[in-house]
Amino acid sequence: MKVIADLCVIPLGVGLSVSAYVAECERVLAEAGLTHELHAYGTNIEGEWDAVMAAVKMCHERVHAMGAERISTSLKLGTRLDRNQSLQDKIDSVRSKLD
Amino acid sequence: MKVIADLCVIPLGVGLSVSAYVAECERVLAEAGLTHELHAYGTNIEGEWDAVMAAVKMCHERVHAMGAERISTSLKLGTRLDRNQSLQDKIDSVRSKLD
Amino acid sequence: MKVIADLCVIPLGVGLSVSAYVAECERVLAEAGLTHELHAYGTNIEGEWDAVMAAVKMCHERVHAMGAERISTSLKLGTRLDRNQSLQDKIDSVRSKLD
Amino acid sequence: MKVIADLCVIPLGVGLSVSAYVAECERVLAEAGLTHELHAYGTNIEGEWDAVMAAVKMCHERVHAMGAERISTSLKLGTRLDRNQSLQDKIDSVRSKLD
Repeated sequence: MKVIADLCVIPLGVGLSVSAYVAECERVLAEAGLTHELHAYGTNIEGEWDAVMAAVKMCHERVHAMGAERISTSLKLGTRLDRNQSLQDKIDSVRSKLD
Repeated sequence: MKVIADLCVIPLGVGLSVSAYVAECERVLAEAGLTHELHAYGTNIEGEWDAVMAAVKMCHERVHAMGAERISTSLKLGTRLDRNQSLQDKIDSVRSKLD
Repeated sequence: MKVIADLCVIPLGVGLSVSAYVAECERVLAEAGLTHELHAYGTNIEGEWDAVMAAVKMCHERVHAMGAERISTSLKLGTRLDRNQSLQDKIDSVRSKLD
Repeated sequence: MKVIADLCVIPLGVGLSVSAYVAECERVLAEAGLTHELHAYGTNIEGEWDAVMAAVKMCHERVHAMGAERISTSLKLGTRLDRNQSLQDKIDSVRSKLD
């Protein structure tokens, strides 16, 4: 089962700047070989369900290992059987209707 | 790693009423033996990370099997190392400050 | 336009315990006269769109005033034209399918 | 109060393809003069709180007017007092830590 996900990891108790923790999650996704695209309030991810979920778990483990004792993550998960759709397909589909 | 989760599964292309699909997810969580509590915009879940995530995957599989060809899920995931906290502990912690 | 909302306010830079800030948001909702129900990962709210949104803004203002310099909120917003549905109706609708 | 938001509008009861409804929301944001950036699972928005919230309400009104009788929206709202940060600043802040 393929999934399009959107991941937003928020470490608590580490002060106001969280970008170092988000950067660590980007490294996790890159190491996992998953297609991913950072945006201003999270990261889009595309891949097989188990691979994406293993990476999300690794993000929590690595962010905790960096010293964040509490994490609150928001994760969106989109699956569909009717057709195979990439991150770029989803954006193109909306943009084609704006022309 | 223990997690407190909040799960909201939205099936698309099945009309306006989605409660039958949400009920199926409740059955999945019960069968998995996970502590869970339905609210008006999702379901709180408490358990080990891998068990919770296996149940979330099963929810997608079962809702697709019911005929929903597309699903968009919102999942919140809270982990903390500083202490063990149950669903009820979280609610009690807020309520104690309202007295 | 009536809305069923789910609000989860996360203050950053204030340490690991956030329940005092969540409690302040509960007070804001009560003062606004909105039907609301706390759960373990947020609060369900029912009301007119503008009243609910004014309360969410007030939550940010009050949590900032308590000393949290950064806030990240997750808000779900459900509107429907086909029928009027309360928080309790939504829960009852799922539970009736579990019997 | 300035806000960085992430908006994901899901119309129900309109079939599997929702891109026409997302495109309408993009038009609403453009008409409102708000800085916004579409991604594969939502749209980042930057602006004053009241202007952003008025646009989100307009999105619901316009998507309902297109024939979607039910909508479920996920909205993230980030506010901070310590400094002024744009959508691009947030992305640059993470990327600078990946070099």
